[in-house]
Amino acid sequence: MPNHENRSKRSGSFVLLNGAPKRAAGAVWLVGAGPGDPELLTIKALKVLQAAEVVVHDGLVSDEILDLAPASARRISVAKRKSRHSYSQDEINRMLVAFALDGLKVVRLKGGDPFIFGRGGEELEACREARVECQVVPGVTAALAAGAGAGAPLTHRGSAQAVTFVTGHAAKGGEPDLDWESLAKPNLTVVIYMGVSMAGPIAARLLGAGRAGSTPALIVENASRADERRVLTTLAGLPQAAESVSGPALLIVGEAMALAHAGQAPPQVEAVLRKVRA
Amino acid sequence: MPNHENRSKRSGSFVLLNGAPKRAAGAVWLVGAGPGDPELLTIKALKVLQAAEVVVHDGLVSDEILDLAPASARRISVAKRKSRHSYSQDEINRMLVAFALDGLKVVRLKGGDPFIFGRGGEELEACREARVECQVVPGVTAALAAGAGAGAPLTHRGSAQAVTFVTGHAAKGGEPDLDWESLAKPNLTVVIYMGVSMAGPIAARLLGAGRAGSTPALIVENASRADERRVLTTLAGLPQAAESVSGPALLIVGEAMALAHAGQAPPQVEAVLRKVRA
Ligand SMILES: C[S@@+](CC[C@H](N)C(=O)[O-])C[C@H]1O[C@@H](n2cnc3c(N)ncnc32)[C@H](O)[C@@H]1O
Ligand SMILES: C[S@@+](CC[C@H](N)C(=O)[O-])C[C@H]1O[C@@H](n2cnc3c(N)ncnc32)[C@H](O)[C@@H]1O
Repeated sequence: MPNHENRSKRSGSFVLLNGAPKRAAGAVWLVGAGPGDPELLTIKALKVLQAAEVVVHDGLVSDEILDLAPASARRISVAKRKSRHSYSQDEINRMLVAFALDGLKVVRLKGGDPFIFGRGGEELEACREARVECQVVPGVTAALAAGAGAGAPLTHRGSAQAVTFVTGHAAKGGEPDLDWESLAKPNLTVVIYMGVSMAGPIAARLLGAGRAGSTPALIVENASRADERRVLTTLAGLPQAAESVSGPALLIVGEAMALAHAGQAPPQVEAVLRKVRA
Repeated sequence: MPNHENRSKRSGSFVLLNGAPKRAAGAVWLVGAGPGDPELLTIKALKVLQAAEVVVHDGLVSDEILDLAPASARRISVAKRKSRHSYSQDEINRMLVAFALDGLKVVRLKGGDPFIFGRGGEELEACREARVECQVVPGVTAALAAGAGAGAPLTHRGSAQAVTFVTGHAAKGGEPDLDWESLAKPNLTVVIYMGVSMAGPIAARLLGAGRAGSTPALIVENASRADERRVLTTLAGLPQAAESVSGPALLIVGEAMALAHAGQAPPQVEAVLRKVRA
């Protein structure tokens, strides 16, 4: 983290001219926390988190990861919840800017990567408009963890010449408005974020646009977490298979998913974060 | 890392029946090393690397990262070089299997993520065929680091509803055989790996399929490294801009790239790997 000099600790005319001690400039870090396993944090994300004064996080970030921030750091959940108070994107943007203008080191902690369906771009724009320094720390997006855990390559010679990330979430509710023709082409891996509740319409559209019903399809729920669960099916079987899903999950459609092994993940490798933290 | 019990240290009939002490079972880890900055390694990748007995790596992995493996670990570069001896994919596959069958902990270290244009799927298949245990550790793929460094979101409300990763490298040489119609649609971010030498034909095809010449395009060379360099241009200007590139680089085409800031990256944040290693 850049070392923001704490001007209030200096005795200089600059400080005194303003009548009150000036606070150091704050800044915002948009940080990808990875898919869930704390060991899939990058070293950089860990460091930035350890220097945070405020952590604004969404629901996908586990307590195990939040515990890595200093005990003194203020933690604010902006998770999209049905029952409790939740924040609009606009409120989140203003909150980040306000804390930074107040001189604080603000970490905006997001699941996966901040720029893959994470609305990080909007937060970055809000910071730029307010002339607040903003840095982005990339993270392992859920798709990469899902492929790794299942042993199923997202690109593969002969069966996956490209990979596309789309969202099953439609801006105005209802069916997502995607380019079904393009997604129905063979030898393309299609990763659908936030698609579980729309698995029926999505499969129907892909089939309608000509993608074979026998195309392998993989659902990965809670990728990289202790409760990771995988279901290997086909495009035709996707809607039914999606019914058993309750946690965050990806739908992955493509020939290369034939290489996936389904089932439960092995128990997490022992957590060595203590060592790293020390 | 799973703890492979060293059977040769046991005195059991199983061992003696075979006449010679048996070695513990080896295994292969396909590990994503991230885009270059050692701090963009995941904690898991660092741990696995620290337990390696053999490290088989390609050219994109820096010495700084290789130094994180134990001094005793054998390091083998399988970089694709023009002048020196290089290995075919088949030779690499057989090498990984042979070391593992010999009882060693083999880390196959790749730039970015092992399953994004990294041929990790082929290595995994070779291990499976030989019944060698193989685990995959995902990594931050170059596209995510490029977007983060440039402050340019790969997906963005209103201007990037999906993102596609393709390769500009054609299996038989010559022009890549991509689905140009699909890639020419607006509001799609197209990330082209290994595309610099093909920037001319790629831009021509995208323009021919109807993508606007004014679409923002970003070239990111050496993403996340001290010598990261970015050029912000348009689809029409891409071929000329690509001429100045010499290191590994991505071509990124899409409306959301309008948010990118071009130019040199700030000097790397201080390396704290010493702390982590201690
Ligand atoms: C708002 S998006 C955020 C994606 C995140 N920025 C990323 O890069 O992974 C949330 C969606 O990501 C997917 N997701 C996130 N974490 C996941 C995990 N551990 N396993 C499976 N899917 C996950 C699910 O589709 C979930 O609905
Ligand atoms: C064989 S592919 C491997 C990609 C890697 N598996 C990944 O996930 O990033 C090599 C290509 O990746 C891209 N690449 C890798 N590292 C990069 C970096 N630091 N900056 C820009 N592009 C990079 C370049 O297009 C390069 O030609």
